[in-house]
Amino acid sequence: MSLTVYRKAHFNAAHRLYRKEWSDDKNAKIFGKCSNPNFHGHNYELEVGITGTIDPETGFLIDMKLLKDIIKEEIEDAFDHKNLNVEVPEFKELIPTMENIAIIIWEKLRNRIEQQFQITVKLYETPRNFVIYNGN
Amino acid sequence: MSLTVYRKAHFNAAHRLYRKEWSDDKNAKIFGKCSNPNFHGHNYELEVGITGTIDPETGFLIDMKLLKDIIKEEIEDAFDHKNLNVEVPEFKELIPTMENIAIIIWEKLRNRIEQQFQITVKLYETPRNFVIYNGN
Amino acid sequence: MSLTVYRKAHFNAAHRLYRKEWSDDKNAKIFGKCSNPNFHGHNYELEVGITGTIDPETGFLIDMKLLKDIIKEEIEDAFDHKNLNVEVPEFKELIPTMENIAIIIWEKLRNRIEQQFQITVKLYETPRNFVIYNGN
Amino acid sequence: MSLTVYRKAHFNAAHRLYRKEWSDDKNAKIFGKCSNPNFHGHNYELEVGITGTIDPETGFLIDMKLLKDIIKEEIEDAFDHKNLNVEVPEFKELIPTMENIAIIIWEKLRNRIEQQFQITVKLYETPRNFVIYNGN
Amino acid sequence: MSLTVYRKAHFNAAHRLYRKEWSDDKNAKIFGKCSNPNFHGHNYELEVGITGTIDPETGFLIDMKLLKDIIKEEIEDAFDHKNLNVEVPEFKELIPTMENIAIIIWEKLRNRIEQQFQITVKLYETPRNFVIYNGN
Amino acid sequence: MSLTVYRKAHFNAAHRLYRKEWSDDKNAKIFGKCSNPNFHGHNYELEVGITGTIDPETGFLIDMKLLKDIIKEEIEDAFDHKNLNVEVPEFKELIPTMENIAIIIWEKLRNRIEQQFQITVKLYETPRNFVIYNGN
Repeated sequence: MSLTVYRKAHFNAAHRLYRKEWSDDKNAKIFGKCSNPNFHGHNYELEVGITGTIDPETGFLIDMKLLKDIIKEEIEDAFDHKNLNVEVPEFKELIPTMENIAIIIWEKLRNRIEQQFQITVKLYETPRNFVIYNGN
Repeated sequence: MSLTVYRKAHFNAAHRLYRKEWSDDKNAKIFGKCSNPNFHGHNYELEVGITGTIDPETGFLIDMKLLKDIIKEEIEDAFDHKNLNVEVPEFKELIPTMENIAIIIWEKLRNRIEQQFQITVKLYETPRNFVIYNGN
Repeated sequence: MSLTVYRKAHFNAAHRLYRKEWSDDKNAKIFGKCSNPNFHGHNYELEVGITGTIDPETGFLIDMKLLKDIIKEEIEDAFDHKNLNVEVPEFKELIPTMENIAIIIWEKLRNRIEQQFQITVKLYETPRNFVIYNGN
Repeated sequence: MSLTVYRKAHFNAAHRLYRKEWSDDKNAKIFGKCSNPNFHGHNYELEVGITGTIDPETGFLIDMKLLKDIIKEEIEDAFDHKNLNVEVPEFKELIPTMENIAIIIWEKLRNRIEQQFQITVKLYETPRNFVIYNGN
Repeated sequence: MSLTVYRKAHFNAAHRLYRKEWSDDKNAKIFGKCSNPNFHGHNYELEVGITGTIDPETGFLIDMKLLKDIIKEEIEDAFDHKNLNVEVPEFKELIPTMENIAIIIWEKLRNRIEQQFQITVKLYETPRNFVIYNGN
Repeated sequence: MSLTVYRKAHFNAAHRLYRKEWSDDKNAKIFGKCSNPNFHGHNYELEVGITGTIDPETGFLIDMKLLKDIIKEEIEDAFDHKNLNVEVPEFKELIPTMENIAIIIWEKLRNRIEQQFQITVKLYETPRNFVIYNGN
């Protein structure tokens, strides 16, 4: 009997989309306003889904307080009120598009969540643009 | 040509998370504030998804008014403004976690929805915690 | 130069609407399903507004972290995961309608927020029913 | 490494549900208030999902500005502020239920989005009724 | 001790903005796509606020079930799934802009709500455009 | 007959809260994580309210397309995807708290909206923190 439980969280961060091997013109052409060298930012809204089976004793798939704490430690403490390009090591060489941020979030959670559970990451960059990644 | 149609509904209820075989200390340790013996409560937001093929004559997968009525009879009338532990028979021996509530909702709908349709239940316990169950 | 800043918070609680001087019939007639003796519950969504002038040095009307902490101490810690009728002293003799809960919240905040600021309380009992109180 | 990116859009339109081979009575019986011969209308909220792999150079699955423009040209310009039955050729012979609208949207996008990408269409007809179609 | 309680409701309707004394050109110039002679439509979201004092016996400002019923009889039954220009008498000579719809809703409610209460009408025509009217 | 119409808009921006006359320690003490020298950012959600009387010929208080264009020219084009501290002249000497941003938005709109109309600005910095300013 498999279910998925979800926990929402959020963080605010600055970023820019920019590829250092490219000219400024090419960066502007590909990334538009998002390549602004002075940075811009977002309220990122995150939904983490955990798929697995219920523990018949507790009726829980996973302790949601534990999940909340893992998200806080791995994601909120690492990303909130940060400049993703400058201050988050994973984005030193990786462009912080919403796709790449979702993959990094998934990988950071994968290291902390037991292997019997599958993980899904849904990340809103704006109210109109979002991404889903589940490790496949 | 398979689609899924969704209908939202909601109900308000009281509950507590508690396992009578366990000591009060163990209940408090596992369930935290949710084991409060005086109960607490939630506005449960429900989304029911029905997967199947379109009737080419009507352009409907299922009559949404019929679906609305089934949800009202099976779920809203049974759970709304109720104490789940005390007044809902399915939770006399089953802890009313959001996971178990979603499974019970799915089973009650399965008895009423024709077998050609698959059913998905998404249940929000709070704006930040929710669960999806589709019978698998 | 007067503005109003707002902070959202939430708490989950059980309650019932019931007047002990009245017969069960009269309670059922006036309060309907809300008078269920076994209680029901809600996710209460709260918006606290603080009206005042900006401190020109900080650009803040009030420190939002301080406001968040006051709301947590006075409202969330006191009401969250509680049975309002049984466990919250203010509702021992006062029916916990959304109107009365809003007034109590306002009064508890009034004791903690400096007098130079006006306070507005907006409280959602369900996504469709809510109340605003500003102390007048 | 497969992800899905989503873009939201919306359009307002009038429609009626009606099958010309049927009597008015049968239309009223099957479609209820939705068969009103004078039309009614909706704010349709649309979420388009595109599934594929990331371009490692850009960190993009697809250029979201391009996706936004395709949705505008194919869907918003064609449907917004229109009477679907009268003015949109696809619904001359096809009843504009939310299911059929979702299928038409999917087909119009399929003609414009490269074949390496899968497409998912989620369409809200009202805040409580919606449909998902992914071409299978 | 004055408060305001709010109740949300909604209705779907078709309309067009059009002044018959004007040429088609002038209508198109002033009202743009909204003057489409074949109509378009919206999901109108309505919030009705009632301001008054609490009944100390019940803790209610007004019986929310009564308010819900009045909104249903006066507004939802009259407007839902209707063509406002063609089927709603108030808009035979009055252009159904969101401003005018809000005024008509306020007047219809004023006839049904006791004079001791003040009434506020908030009407969303789209998620981005809305209007507030309180009778002054 | 006075009403208020509202238009929603949004912009994404980076900022930091920092007072150059103060030491880094004092900035950190007063502004916390918001004083990060590398900046962070937000999706700012904006609601602009315009209060006035209806034009009886059009049924409009103001042309919403005109209002949308003014908001785009004055606010979105000036702030979106920008670093408020570095690139927006109004915040060269003024700390870009949400309170100050709301005041600047109000003043920029005041220069463009006819004097017969009153203006209200509601600005969400996060889903939980927002501010209202109406020029008084």
